[in-house]
Amino acid sequence: MPHSAFTFDDLQRYAPSVAEPDDFDEFWRATLTEAAAVPVLVDVRPEPTDLRLLDSWDVTFAGFGGDPVRAWYTRPAGVREPLPALVEYAGYGRGRGLPHERLTWPVAGYAHLLMDNRGQAGQHGAGDTPDPHGAPGGPSPATWGILDPRTYHYRRLITDAVRAVEAVRALPGVEGDRVSVVGNSQGGGLALAVAGLVDDLSAVLTTAPFLCDMRRAVALTDLAPYGEIARYLAVHREAEEAVWRTLSYVDAVSFARRATAPAQFGVGQRDTVCPPRTAFAAYNHYGAANGRPVPPERQMHVYPFNGHEGGEAVHVRRQLCWLDSVLQTVRASVM
Amino acid sequence: MPHSAFTFDDLQRYAPSVAEPDDFDEFWRATLTEAAAVPVLVDVRPEPTDLRLLDSWDVTFAGFGGDPVRAWYTRPAGVREPLPALVEYAGYGRGRGLPHERLTWPVAGYAHLLMDNRGQAGQHGAGDTPDPHGAPGGPSPATWGILDPRTYHYRRLITDAVRAVEAVRALPGVEGDRVSVVGNSQGGGLALAVAGLVDDLSAVLTTAPFLCDMRRAVALTDLAPYGEIARYLAVHREAEEAVWRTLSYVDAVSFARRATAPAQFGVGQRDTVCPPRTAFAAYNHYGAANGRPVPPERQMHVYPFNGHEGGEAVHVRRQLCWLDSVLQTVRASVM
Amino acid sequence: MPHSAFTFDDLQRYAPSVAEPDDFDEFWRATLTEAAAVPVLVDVRPEPTDLRLLDSWDVTFAGFGGDPVRAWYTRPAGVREPLPALVEYAGYGRGRGLPHERLTWPVAGYAHLLMDNRGQAGQHGAGDTPDPHGAPGGPSPATWGILDPRTYHYRRLITDAVRAVEAVRALPGVEGDRVSVVGNSQGGGLALAVAGLVDDLSAVLTTAPFLCDMRRAVALTDLAPYGEIARYLAVHREAEEAVWRTLSYVDAVSFARRATAPAQFGVGQRDTVCPPRTAFAAYNHYGAANGRPVPPERQMHVYPFNGHEGGEAVHVRRQLCWLDSVLQTVRASVM
Amino acid sequence: MPHSAFTFDDLQRYAPSVAEPDDFDEFWRATLTEAAAVPVLVDVRPEPTDLRLLDSWDVTFAGFGGDPVRAWYTRPAGVREPLPALVEYAGYGRGRGLPHERLTWPVAGYAHLLMDNRGQAGQHGAGDTPDPHGAPGGPSPATWGILDPRTYHYRRLITDAVRAVEAVRALPGVEGDRVSVVGNSQGGGLALAVAGLVDDLSAVLTTAPFLCDMRRAVALTDLAPYGEIARYLAVHREAEEAVWRTLSYVDAVSFARRATAPAQFGVGQRDTVCPPRTAFAAYNHYGAANGRPVPPERQMHVYPFNGHEGGEAVHVRRQLCWLDSVLQTVRASVM
Amino acid sequence: MPHSAFTFDDLQRYAPSVAEPDDFDEFWRATLTEAAAVPVLVDVRPEPTDLRLLDSWDVTFAGFGGDPVRAWYTRPAGVREPLPALVEYAGYGRGRGLPHERLTWPVAGYAHLLMDNRGQAGQHGAGDTPDPHGAPGGPSPATWGILDPRTYHYRRLITDAVRAVEAVRALPGVEGDRVSVVGNSQGGGLALAVAGLVDDLSAVLTTAPFLCDMRRAVALTDLAPYGEIARYLAVHREAEEAVWRTLSYVDAVSFARRATAPAQFGVGQRDTVCPPRTAFAAYNHYGAANGRPVPPERQMHVYPFNGHEGGEAVHVRRQLCWLDSVLQTVRASVM
Amino acid sequence: MPHSAFTFDDLQRYAPSVAEPDDFDEFWRATLTEAAAVPVLVDVRPEPTDLRLLDSWDVTFAGFGGDPVRAWYTRPAGVREPLPALVEYAGYGRGRGLPHERLTWPVAGYAHLLMDNRGQAGQHGAGDTPDPHGAPGGPSPATWGILDPRTYHYRRLITDAVRAVEAVRALPGVEGDRVSVVGNSQGGGLALAVAGLVDDLSAVLTTAPFLCDMRRAVALTDLAPYGEIARYLAVHREAEEAVWRTLSYVDAVSFARRATAPAQFGVGQRDTVCPPRTAFAAYNHYGAANGRPVPPERQMHVYPFNGHEGGEAVHVRRQLCWLDSVLQTVRASVM
Repeated sequence: MPHSAFTFDDLQRYAPSVAEPDDFDEFWRATLTEAAAVPVLVDVRPEPTDLRLLDSWDVTFAGFGGDPVRAWYTRPAGVREPLPALVEYAGYGRGRGLPHERLTWPVAGYAHLLMDNRGQAGQHGAGDTPDPHGAPGGPSPATWGILDPRTYHYRRLITDAVRAVEAVRALPGVEGDRVSVVGNSQGGGLALAVAGLVDDLSAVLTTAPFLCDMRRAVALTDLAPYGEIARYLAVHREAEEAVWRTLSYVDAVSFARRATAPAQFGVGQRDTVCPPRTAFAAYNHYGAANGRPVPPERQMHVYPFNGHEGGEAVHVRRQLCWLDSVLQTVRASVM
Repeated sequence: MPHSAFTFDDLQRYAPSVAEPDDFDEFWRATLTEAAAVPVLVDVRPEPTDLRLLDSWDVTFAGFGGDPVRAWYTRPAGVREPLPALVEYAGYGRGRGLPHERLTWPVAGYAHLLMDNRGQAGQHGAGDTPDPHGAPGGPSPATWGILDPRTYHYRRLITDAVRAVEAVRALPGVEGDRVSVVGNSQGGGLALAVAGLVDDLSAVLTTAPFLCDMRRAVALTDLAPYGEIARYLAVHREAEEAVWRTLSYVDAVSFARRATAPAQFGVGQRDTVCPPRTAFAAYNHYGAANGRPVPPERQMHVYPFNGHEGGEAVHVRRQLCWLDSVLQTVRASVM
Repeated sequence: MPHSAFTFDDLQRYAPSVAEPDDFDEFWRATLTEAAAVPVLVDVRPEPTDLRLLDSWDVTFAGFGGDPVRAWYTRPAGVREPLPALVEYAGYGRGRGLPHERLTWPVAGYAHLLMDNRGQAGQHGAGDTPDPHGAPGGPSPATWGILDPRTYHYRRLITDAVRAVEAVRALPGVEGDRVSVVGNSQGGGLALAVAGLVDDLSAVLTTAPFLCDMRRAVALTDLAPYGEIARYLAVHREAEEAVWRTLSYVDAVSFARRATAPAQFGVGQRDTVCPPRTAFAAYNHYGAANGRPVPPERQMHVYPFNGHEGGEAVHVRRQLCWLDSVLQTVRASVM
Repeated sequence: MPHSAFTFDDLQRYAPSVAEPDDFDEFWRATLTEAAAVPVLVDVRPEPTDLRLLDSWDVTFAGFGGDPVRAWYTRPAGVREPLPALVEYAGYGRGRGLPHERLTWPVAGYAHLLMDNRGQAGQHGAGDTPDPHGAPGGPSPATWGILDPRTYHYRRLITDAVRAVEAVRALPGVEGDRVSVVGNSQGGGLALAVAGLVDDLSAVLTTAPFLCDMRRAVALTDLAPYGEIARYLAVHREAEEAVWRTLSYVDAVSFARRATAPAQFGVGQRDTVCPPRTAFAAYNHYGAANGRPVPPERQMHVYPFNGHEGGEAVHVRRQLCWLDSVLQTVRASVM
Repeated sequence: MPHSAFTFDDLQRYAPSVAEPDDFDEFWRATLTEAAAVPVLVDVRPEPTDLRLLDSWDVTFAGFGGDPVRAWYTRPAGVREPLPALVEYAGYGRGRGLPHERLTWPVAGYAHLLMDNRGQAGQHGAGDTPDPHGAPGGPSPATWGILDPRTYHYRRLITDAVRAVEAVRALPGVEGDRVSVVGNSQGGGLALAVAGLVDDLSAVLTTAPFLCDMRRAVALTDLAPYGEIARYLAVHREAEEAVWRTLSYVDAVSFARRATAPAQFGVGQRDTVCPPRTAFAAYNHYGAANGRPVPPERQMHVYPFNGHEGGEAVHVRRQLCWLDSVLQTVRASVM
Repeated sequence: MPHSAFTFDDLQRYAPSVAEPDDFDEFWRATLTEAAAVPVLVDVRPEPTDLRLLDSWDVTFAGFGGDPVRAWYTRPAGVREPLPALVEYAGYGRGRGLPHERLTWPVAGYAHLLMDNRGQAGQHGAGDTPDPHGAPGGPSPATWGILDPRTYHYRRLITDAVRAVEAVRALPGVEGDRVSVVGNSQGGGLALAVAGLVDDLSAVLTTAPFLCDMRRAVALTDLAPYGEIARYLAVHREAEEAVWRTLSYVDAVSFARRATAPAQFGVGQRDTVCPPRTAFAAYNHYGAANGRPVPPERQMHVYPFNGHEGGEAVHVRRQLCWLDSVLQTVRASVM
């Protein structure tokens, strides 16, 4: 059913107060400090692809807890000069797949790092990184260790995502001051999380983001991954407060409030997986608590007849144009 | 669609050759030996239930890797004398739940131990035992660590199930020579596995068993949990041989072949979750390779109009009667 | 879709005016008087169950029109002393099943009578009581004889439910002044109806009740049994007023208004079978028109992530505790 | 899924041996004799319809047990001369509806009697005839009283159907020696039943017939009404033999074997409600045991891409042509 | 889900402002003038039907662009005198079918013309008229040529519908001053369109009309045909403004505003194909801009428990009565 | 349901005799000759994409009937030298989309022409080419003009596909003797059709092909597009022979028999859209009637756990490798 009582006007005004624990910043500072204690690059080796215009490498970097996290690094073949870089995060239930699956950004001329999602691959896409931790919680990745923010899967995944930015900066041929992040769905949520944790990104591109306004989202949809959390609560009725507390440490609205980089959002107005209002919660709060006098640039594209797939190729084109213009501004301001 | 080309006659004749690795026995001997190195009982404490006729205890025992595994131990209130015992295994996506959920066996007069399923609770039922391991494989419990038999979730779960038998024997008030196992669906598969690994059980009650004739089952149904394995293979196309190899170490048909205890089976002929022929594969091979001159007693009840729910209360009544008569025989032969 | 425009606050305030015919009390007084004209117990015979801790009897009592209605009577084995009793009503499409199916209450120490639903068994559960009446109306039990309150199936079923209380009081070993009623779904609606028709019950336990605020419920859901009434009206468009009139004689909100006993409610907030607001309609009006100066005790437990299954084992535990405390108060006040 | 292992060739050869009780003929002789003890016409009154070309009457006739059964009698307006007549039986869950709903046959020039289905109306179509009997069995019409052939709903409905033929012959303006029967789905099954019980019909038109080869049909489909019988057996597992015995008294294959009138069949090859092979079972046995030297004329039209709706208007046209030609033969042979 | 936040009171007040282009009248004047340039009747030949009470003819008339459009013309057999006529329009995905499919109106005594839908037949019903045009737009009839009002399929279909009125007036035996239009779903939308384009109709009967308040309807439902437009916009995101512009030329609310004939509406309140509010949009605006001092008579029948099927036979009876009374008024005023 | 009675062995042996009209070759010779009468290139203009590594052009070529057909031409940026070329055909309900959607082949170093599907875009993907023809048939593209091979949509689409090969050879920078074709689903069927009509292709890559063994396919699946043909036949029951005749002119098995180029197939064994056996029908007949002494090289990759999506990225990698090796052979043999 496409219709909702929530209109486009409602979306534009939707800026809910999302619970934020007092030690939110300290929690993440400590987590990232611990992760930063080991060198980020573990292994980098060339990967053949039969694509003449691109070169690819199989990268392993140290993520949360020093766990080895895999990624594909791809860039225009034979180009030696430093390039602006883009770190991409994959959707829920997917991993990095094969190196020839996501060509848009390297073909556009960027150095591109596609991070594997630990433990998730095998439902919708392939991957190579396990999540070697275990803690009380439900059987789906979105519920692994959900009873405590310290053991929650997304603490590890968000840390990996931050480390991926550090990894790409450690790779040869990257302009370290022109690194951006991009993702769709869970990848879009991770991009927002990184935007709130890394303060010198050049740009953030997020579409149909997961992880936003999560307590509300769990109430709005039955579909995975939010629905997996609701399912867990339907079984573990006593766990509700613990779950809300855990989620308050990973809500992308709280990360978005702290963000400083220009951001471009895309949303399908009929999205029933990640309800559009929850993306607007992040958008409307974006940069509001970043401590800077001027708010970051942000733009939102809404696709009224689309669901979770959003704007697809139309939006990709808009991403290419927008990022190009943002980076030229960056370059100008850096020079 | 209830109808299948597979008739009742076909079921009765279905005795496929299931792949069995050369080191099957050695694999399990080594695994169980390692598990046996630590004392089995970790903690036993009374659990209030508001049920006047029963007493319950919250039991923690050392399972695979010494991991703490929870269970409920329940028996007729105030009865001091040793009782025959029944170890029950829960279905996929469930745990031990609350201690007042499964009353049939203690009300019938048995000492009853209900084992938690590590890591699975939260989808269909509650539980308290995490699975603190991680290895390459898919995101669902049925695919955790599936690329290698040593890392597969069912290696750990089957070991827990064997250890549960040892745990109940270590508890006070149990007749150690009259211990039986019972389970439905995954619980039925675990009961068969234990039947093949523990050679002095009094009886085995298994309904709609999972884990049987798995390679065929993955080809026959899209529904979880078999369908989750198929889904993983649809994404990780390169993993097929590794998965078949792993499954060959946990197939309940191979365990059933080694079983020595009398067994009662129940199957719904319209079961689309655990196809009935796969239960017959275990039934028709039951005890065939246990090295004894006389095959164990076995019986099969088929419910032609039922699916995975099988015979429900009708079958429970048959279980009560059958177990009672088997145990009297046991008692007689022991005396 | 879990979300509804109806929030928890809306539920707490929802106290609609439900149509009540002028002769409501007279209708039921006459109906029950007529039923009371024959002795209630028709037959009581022991029923074997293989459960050592319990004794069961197959009871036949005279229901509406003197029709024989079956029930299971179960209590702790060998206990001679009078016990507090609980009458349980089964859900729609079910009957009393087998005597070993519902063990919680007798295991908790109560004398327990489980009433068969006339004519309904065979869809979700088994039973043994036909409904030997026929009148214009639709083909489903919820629509049998629905064109006139005198011929409506629920006139007969509610009368049976009241007679079941009389039957349990006529059985040996029951404390007649400590009889309570319990039920889920249709059973919960019957419990409320009995609460409004029998003024000396000790307690009422109702979960996910059917029969409440029925005209609204028919507008809110397509699922059976409400949806069967809507389906009938979609075919018999001329019958609408007759149907609303008939339902006004069996609406559990009107019964709840007359109730005097303490009551405990349980509701799943995502229930799409019996919409939660209709349970709140009964709860918010509970005892409001019972003619007594002090309203009866009542409590409501809401399970926000659950549907029609509600709180399951968690709620059962709450029921056990609450009934125990209520009965101790009853005992105290009786003494 | 349209495809079945059962091909068109298989259909043409499908002539299963359907169980027939020894007292089949005696059962029906006694049943019909008892019904014939009261005068068939109870009431006939004109019914306005706003259709200028037709006249309609609301007819009440005495069916099984003398119960009043309603019907619509419709014929070309103002025509006094006797006309060939057609008795039509409605589908499952339907009744006679309104008198302007089925116009084809009276517009073609026939006297047309449309019988109400006792107790069924209200699910798919409207009606006015209750089924004032009650006996052990399931809650759906197809399961009412199913434990005994004497109490089964279809004993009553088939008797009504035979009485409808007697009723139309008692009405003015009908050529008593040119009466035919027609029906679709359950109506088609009733037409076959009447064909086996009334030996001087002029023609039988049956499409997508229910009631044929019932034990097989219950195994082949989950859809109502066969699926309702399977559902009952899934709940009342002990009832299987009683149900098969009851069905053997109403199987339309046994009636078809006894039939003498010419018959035209229509079947959709993708019918999942009444599997096409079960119609072929009746067709291939049609007239085989009617004790006459020459088998009756029969024809079958198969619609390969259609389901339960079959040939619709295309088949209606074929029915009109075929009946016209058959009746001209009848007229010729009568003259 | 039957319930909607939109109540019956909301429906009665719902009179949205529907976009209407400045050249709406000119667009249709030019379109119809061009169509009128060729003689309307192309071919009329008798069609046998085996129905004794009716005569049928296969009619071909010149529709949009002079394209040959087929229709069935049916009337009481042998009646020479002029009769009031009714032009009927079929639903989406259907054509005229076979001549014996729609008997109500001729049996009631009317001359009846049933127009084929160009290009649509083959999904739900049969037909014989192709739509020999092609233009940019989507692959479903509701989207053919949708990027421009001049190329849109409904420009052609509405023109055909107007021409059908002219055709029936050109046929022998028709009272030219007593011609009415009737249709359900798309047919109901066409009836409203004709009501706004032809100013001397006697009556308009429309049920569950498509084409009303289309921009809103596309937002309210996913079901075809509105859902096919939404689907097109989900793929061709750039086409939104062009599509809204095109639809503004064919919205039946704008036609209804211009209508002068008495009108009867029927709506199922649970209609999810053509949302009931969109029918009320046409009803509440009906005749509001027809330039006459007294608004035309109109009535609305709402069926609260029905979906797109609406009132079915009950409503047909109301249509028969209402049209009869309206035509008698017409006759009186003409005389 | 993944399982089918059709095993892998059955697939390998499946080589059905597909009906082929006597004038098959003449029909296509005449059709292509007529199309060849006009110059193939109509318009070529640069298209910006923001992709630095590629250059794109918007191409218009003259297809069937000289109709303008759009395509994207894309190749490595700045490369002047002639490249081997690949013509790609899109799936059913899709068009060419946007030029940055299909990057694999140009990134691999090929000149790549992606043909628009006339009239189909708007259901699953975007496009810009209408199909300006109209003829009797059903409302879906797969049924447009289906009553006659001369008016059938696929006559036009296949002709366009052949013309696309001619177009790419007319473009600058293409090695005319190294042109291959590729497609998935409908695109795979078109690739096979072109393989049978153009005798100097270098290679054919086809996955999950539509258009193969069509009469059987229509019997095997309900899903579009085959299901749309079945749906049409369910409505137009008289059209069956005409439809089979039309399909016999476009069946890809007949084209495959005539093919001469090396071919690589990919199939998902659980494909329910284009049943795998129908792809094997083409594979097993591939080149069998091409009049050459040595059969062309062919290979088949089966993905046992995949449906219509097939091998995805894994198969793409295999395509890249295989085409590279085939073209090197071509180069060698040309040199």
